[in-house]
Amino acid sequence: MSAQRIALVPGDGIGPEVTAQAVKACDAAARRFGIDLVWEDYELGADYWRITGQVVPPDVEQELAKADAILFGAVGDPSVPPGVLERGLVIHLRTAFDQYVNLRPVKLLPGVPTPIGGLRPEQCDLVILRENTEGAYVGAGGFIHRGGPDEIATQESVNTRKGVERLIRHGFRLALSRRKHVTLVHKANILTYAGDLWQRTFAEVAAEYPDIEVDYVHVDAMCLYLVTQPERFDVVVTDNLFGDIITDLGAAVQGGLGLAASGNLNPTGSAPSMFEPVHGSAPDIAGRGWANPAGSILSAALMLEHLGHPEAARCLEDGVKAVLPRLGAMRGPEMGMSTEDFGDAVAAVIGE
Amino acid sequence: MSAQRIALVPGDGIGPEVTAQAVKACDAAARRFGIDLVWEDYELGADYWRITGQVVPPDVEQELAKADAILFGAVGDPSVPPGVLERGLVIHLRTAFDQYVNLRPVKLLPGVPTPIGGLRPEQCDLVILRENTEGAYVGAGGFIHRGGPDEIATQESVNTRKGVERLIRHGFRLALSRRKHVTLVHKANILTYAGDLWQRTFAEVAAEYPDIEVDYVHVDAMCLYLVTQPERFDVVVTDNLFGDIITDLGAAVQGGLGLAASGNLNPTGSAPSMFEPVHGSAPDIAGRGWANPAGSILSAALMLEHLGHPEAARCLEDGVKAVLPRLGAMRGPEMGMSTEDFGDAVAAVIGE
Ligand SMILES: CC(C)[C@H](C(=O)O)[C@@H](O)C(=O)O
Ligand SMILES: CC(C)[C@H](C(=O)O)[C@@H](O)C(=O)O
Repeated sequence: MSAQRIALVPGDGIGPEVTAQAVKACDAAARRFGIDLVWEDYELGADYWRITGQVVPPDVEQELAKADAILFGAVGDPSVPPGVLERGLVIHLRTAFDQYVNLRPVKLLPGVPTPIGGLRPEQCDLVILRENTEGAYVGAGGFIHRGGPDEIATQESVNTRKGVERLIRHGFRLALSRRKHVTLVHKANILTYAGDLWQRTFAEVAAEYPDIEVDYVHVDAMCLYLVTQPERFDVVVTDNLFGDIITDLGAAVQGGLGLAASGNLNPTGSAPSMFEPVHGSAPDIAGRGWANPAGSILSAALMLEHLGHPEAARCLEDGVKAVLPRLGAMRGPEMGMSTEDFGDAVAAVIGE
Repeated sequence: MSAQRIALVPGDGIGPEVTAQAVKACDAAARRFGIDLVWEDYELGADYWRITGQVVPPDVEQELAKADAILFGAVGDPSVPPGVLERGLVIHLRTAFDQYVNLRPVKLLPGVPTPIGGLRPEQCDLVILRENTEGAYVGAGGFIHRGGPDEIATQESVNTRKGVERLIRHGFRLALSRRKHVTLVHKANILTYAGDLWQRTFAEVAAEYPDIEVDYVHVDAMCLYLVTQPERFDVVVTDNLFGDIITDLGAAVQGGLGLAASGNLNPTGSAPSMFEPVHGSAPDIAGRGWANPAGSILSAALMLEHLGHPEAARCLEDGVKAVLPRLGAMRGPEMGMSTEDFGDAVAAVIGE
């Protein structure tokens, strides 16, 4: 296999610290399995925007488009108006590179404290697939009489059959290799247009998979079940906004944002997929060595899997699993191990 | 004070069982405090719809409009297409009676098991105010090329300055009598139109209340914080859909849907307010005496408060607080006490 080029976008805040550990872990696995990974750094984020006035210039985007995958840290800084980098970089790349599946595992790892009393790892192992290119994230909407007493602000969710179907299909394919259960999450009793398209499409795709059990759950009930009965779920498919909401909750259930991984997948390969921890740039703890790099390393594991290296991916996951129980807390000075020491420890486990 | 007329709409499933206990508790408090409550039964719900083909006929709606308050059970039955009764009755009355504040306390009562490990009652006492007449619930949207491969389904959230402002104002007024902290929950970095109206309005109203601390939290982060740090919140204001989602999660945190109360308030008094447990009709356990009537009794407490009887309201709450710790579980046969016994026990405490 020829070298695989990975575009590294560390970003802001704790982004660089955590991605450095993910790179370390990938390199350790690459050595062990004879994989040829080439890293290319891209200094995008708050500084870049302040200096150049651009979030991602077209030529940089073209460069990124040629990578085999993108490993992303986090963006966002108090010096930048909220939303500029999130929309200009994260949301923009998800859409521009047609990364229509946002894959977010919710998995409680052994030895990780969860806020949910008595929850055991075997009860919490689901994958949420969030539609990643449309829905309420398209930015459609507007104002009438803005600023006046009769102002109206509208915000539109736009859902295409093609967009909904390809996400749902991905879910059914994934379920075949898991526990063969797919749940649709929506609010179809109220969002009758969007919900109808999602439910009809779900039913049609489900008919092609008679061996897969299906289920429908309203998004409000989903929040309740995620906390009280996560064992109900295997693969969950949902829209962009609901996916955003329930995956943060899922991260809480699995022990915190610091541990949650995600892949923005373009399953067709027409553009690179992008892997990023679910957490943000956490400027409050940046540079102290207090960030947990597990989310970033686990995202890199999803990347290695996507690049065709499942054993290497498993090695990264096993490394994280081995080191997490040694932490005093999942974040902050109480972790009892610096971000870098965590990365070294994972790399050491991988190298064993 | 002359008699107060309460329209009782028990509805379907466990609705009649739980509202019967709420009536019992109200009557006990009415006797104790010399309050004159007159109950008027309305047999709306699945049976009514099946027999008459109507959800709420105009003349019944006019009758309801004359009540001083409405005590609502739950609607929904497998024999009725999903959404018909929810939209035709619950959502319809909220809008028709301009009940623009959906008030949902999230309060962990002593002795109630919560799924959140180690959470103590003093850490969980917030009130979520959900805008109840607009947003994504207006039902705006449509299809293009429905059923074809190029189908598009849109769903629109419509937010008016007036609607947003009156809800937010209610939140600030409420915060004055609580811990003086109001949090806006939205997803303003993505829903830039609706979010902008909410944030601008929030900032303007906040400027009139210099003694009240304010805060903004994205809805995804809110789900995480509700589970990990509910003590961050006092009064929370949010839109209809986000409110729907986070209040179900709040119900989970406070020990289950069976315990969660709500008031659909028309603070102007131009039409009656409506009080209902957050739970649904739970047809699976209807008629077995396994439903927990706490949500309904606590909703009735909100009603008594709204009708100007704060001591009676407190009595209902105290009754529930006294009886809940005697339960073996919060729902089902393991409760160790029937729905009716629970109501009797609460009435007995109130009568003491
Ligand atoms: C940063 C933000 C734009 C993003 C989103 O809303 O998708 C984040 O919350 C996430 O879940 O990846
Ligand atoms: C029954 C349903 C229409 C309702 C809603 O979505 O508002 C319910 O979920 C609630 O929270 O009261």
